Amino acid sequence: METQPVEFLTQRPSPEDDFTFGFDVVAIGNALVDVLTSSTDEHLTSLGLVKGTMALVDSTQSRAIYETLGATMEASGGSAANTMAGVAALGGQAAFLGRVADDALGTAFSHDIRSIGVAFEPKPVTGISGEKVTGHCLVLVTEDAERTMATHLGVASEFALDDLHDEHLSTTQIVYLEGYLWDQPAAKAAMREAIDRAHAADASVALTLSDPFCVEAHRSEFLELLSNDLDLLFANEEEIKLLFKAGTFDEAASQLAEAGVLGALTRGAQGSVVVTPAGTINVPAAAVDRVVDTTGAGDLFAAGFLYGITHGMDPERAARLGGVCAAEIISHVGARPQADLRRLAIDAGLLDS
Amino acid sequence: METQPVEFLTQRPSPEDDFTFGFDVVAIGNALVDVLTSSTDEHLTSLGLVKGTMALVDSTQSRAIYETLGATMEASGGSAANTMAGVAALGGQAAFLGRVADDALGTAFSHDIRSIGVAFEPKPVTGISGEKVTGHCLVLVTEDAERTMATHLGVASEFALDDLHDEHLSTTQIVYLEGYLWDQPAAKAAMREAIDRAHAADASVALTLSDPFCVEAHRSEFLELLSNDLDLLFANEEEIKLLFKAGTFDEAASQLAEAGVLGALTRGAQGSVVVTPAGTINVPAAAVDRVVDTTGAGDLFAAGFLYGITHGMDPERAARLGGVCAAEIISHVGARPQADLRRLAIDAGLLDS
Repeated sequence: METQPVEFLTQRPSPEDDFTFGFDVVAIGNALVDVLTSSTDEHLTSLGLVKGTMALVDSTQSRAIYETLGATMEASGGSAANTMAGVAALGGQAAFLGRVADDALGTAFSHDIRSIGVAFEPKPVTGISGEKVTGHCLVLVTEDAERTMATHLGVASEFALDDLHDEHLSTTQIVYLEGYLWDQPAAKAAMREAIDRAHAADASVALTLSDPFCVEAHRSEFLELLSNDLDLLFANEEEIKLLFKAGTFDEAASQLAEAGVLGALTRGAQGSVVVTPAGTINVPAAAVDRVVDTTGAGDLFAAGFLYGITHGMDPERAARLGGVCAAEIISHVGARPQADLRRLAIDAGLLDS
Repeated sequence: METQPVEFLTQRPSPEDDFTFGFDVVAIGNALVDVLTSSTDEHLTSLGLVKGTMALVDSTQSRAIYETLGATMEASGGSAANTMAGVAALGGQAAFLGRVADDALGTAFSHDIRSIGVAFEPKPVTGISGEKVTGHCLVLVTEDAERTMATHLGVASEFALDDLHDEHLSTTQIVYLEGYLWDQPAAKAAMREAIDRAHAADASVALTLSDPFCVEAHRSEFLELLSNDLDLLFANEEEIKLLFKAGTFDEAASQLAEAGVLGALTRGAQGSVVVTPAGTINVPAAAVDRVVDTTGAGDLFAAGFLYGITHGMDPERAARLGGVCAAEIISHVGARPQADLRRLAIDAGLLDS
């Protein structure tokens, strides 16, 4: 028994209405391959990295950090791409828009996201060998399962209008934007265009704040988006407090409620909080045997939430589904699901088999 | 308290004797990057792969199989390379000899094995783009944690005399050979040369039988090696039975005992069996919470055993150390240690802190 869609989505065209095939969510984000390794607090300090955050580095810095790493494991990543992988793993229709190069990492990224059922039709960028590379993210996982990232964006940072996929964008219920991309002027222009197209197609627009540094860098623009363009906002505790310069989480949540935008906020082990104009709902975290690597926790929470609200769940139930997905991802290394998410959701009583 | 070295190693030069620096083990093997994914029995059948074995495939077949895989994770592998990573993780002096190409996978392989402390000084092979590639192994892990492999050897198969490292080979206690390489004539010639150099330097020679198909293909030569050249043999139950065409494990073990070669045999969940001319010793497996992926179990058992016998342990204790290393590796995805093996060995009372 699933409840009715929340109000902010009721304006979407119904399946019987003006399209017969379409996507639940189309995401725009950085196409990245994660290079995962274990690390220590001392190592992070020696590299000048701030625990729990993502730093952008150039190819020289990336190589210098890589030299200091222990044995690594490579797995497709990218925040919004992870989210789309999760939506597809739950059985949803998802597409991803991002830029890759015509290299080994680009091949792996494309393979991985398609293999889980996400539509991905990039135009791989070629260039002089070594000049145009697929983005990659060095993920340093400390013993407390926290992850600290140094990202060399490569061609992901060149995302532009040209990478928007007309058909994908015109047939989706939600356009989901990765805050990280706001750093790049061309990508920002493309995302603004995607927002306009979403509005024109009566689709909803969702944004994830991505990272505290990202919020600090683009605070005024994110607040403006919140007032004018967004239907749904994803953030963790630190990000939402920074956005509103709020002293407490509750203060930030009430400011978000006033903005009239649905909020899906994550609080780590404390679970999540759904913020609606009518009030806030606390949703406890799903149980996890052992937290191995928090990489992708927020991304997969978003996946469950997005799947839920595009499949008739109320926000509370959608947040519970998000919690189930996040619990799976933090129980192993890597930010793409390894277990059958749909089966886990059924076992948790959140989806019908 | 560690016991004295076993007899077969007492002929080695002592550290005070004729070398002041040297390796515990130098291994020759295929330099491979593993591409790990989860799979099902039906999927294996549809691909014509035999569960639990390794099949060699060309680049076209490898690509065709890759297309059918779900999301993958890449991590350095190669049987003997995994073993050397384990020896180094325990604090031993290890070197690896294998061939990589000058490409992304070769860079990752070189980084990973060096980062754990293994000496690796290859001459990366360059060639027309896409022609000379670093070897890679598609590892399909089924729900029972078994792994089935399809390997495209790339330049690893071109290992030759030229890749032997004089200094490494002249200062080691043990030369460890990967049975897989016996398939390649040039590699076989290089391994025979390495055996001769080991004999000349009073080093011991160890061989791992690698795979049932490998034993079937080279049975007579492996038996000849056993009679003339080997001091130590690693095998699992199926491999040792095939080698001696024995009906039972016990029959195979007694034939190995007659050959006068120290045997370190693995039996999965049943642990390991050490075979000496004086008799056999059963060593139970170390406890594992949850078996996730058996990739590398045999390789890491060999690591613990090799570290043990090059550091004054008797074979039984060395086999227990092997069990501790194998238990770590099967508790996660990937065939290189993620936990501190030396710490685990200390906690198990097998090494002094």
